Amino acid sequence: MQDKELLTFFGSKVQQIRTHKGLSQETLAELTDLDRTYISSIERGRRNVSLINIYRLITALDCQPHELFPVKGEAL
Amino acid sequence: MQDKELLTFFGSKVQQIRTHKGLSQETLAELTDLDRTYISSIERGRRNVSLINIYRLITALDCQPHELFPVKGEAL
Repeated sequence: MQDKELLTFFGSKVQQIRTHKGLSQETLAELTDLDRTYISSIERGRRNVSLINIYRLITALDCQPHELFPVKGEAL
Repeated sequence: MQDKELLTFFGSKVQQIRTHKGLSQETLAELTDLDRTYISSIERGRRNVSLINIYRLITALDCQPHELFPVKGEAL
């Protein structure tokens, strides 16, 4: 998987889970102690998010790590 | 979990899985297209690894994302 595709995949999953759980970007920003505009750029696939921020997202979204990563061999 | 603990946890898991699979740091460096010294600093908990490099490690180690992240509520 190309790097750009991975960032887009990750961002779309964050958005999907966030909206599924009825959280606004503002609320997710508060829960993760990240800026709302940063959350927005993550969701648009513009950020190569760091481990620490990935773990903050996993915790705030109360999801499993595998939900944010492509399953091996998964086509997009 | 404190950020520093997360980096240490992640690094120890990378090392654990790498050695369990009989891979040297050199081989993992080749598989991930990362520098061996970078692999070494990841394993020592010194790196806030990016999403792209985390996914390279997951792919190269042929492991599941959850194997590299703490289970919620998991004490260290």
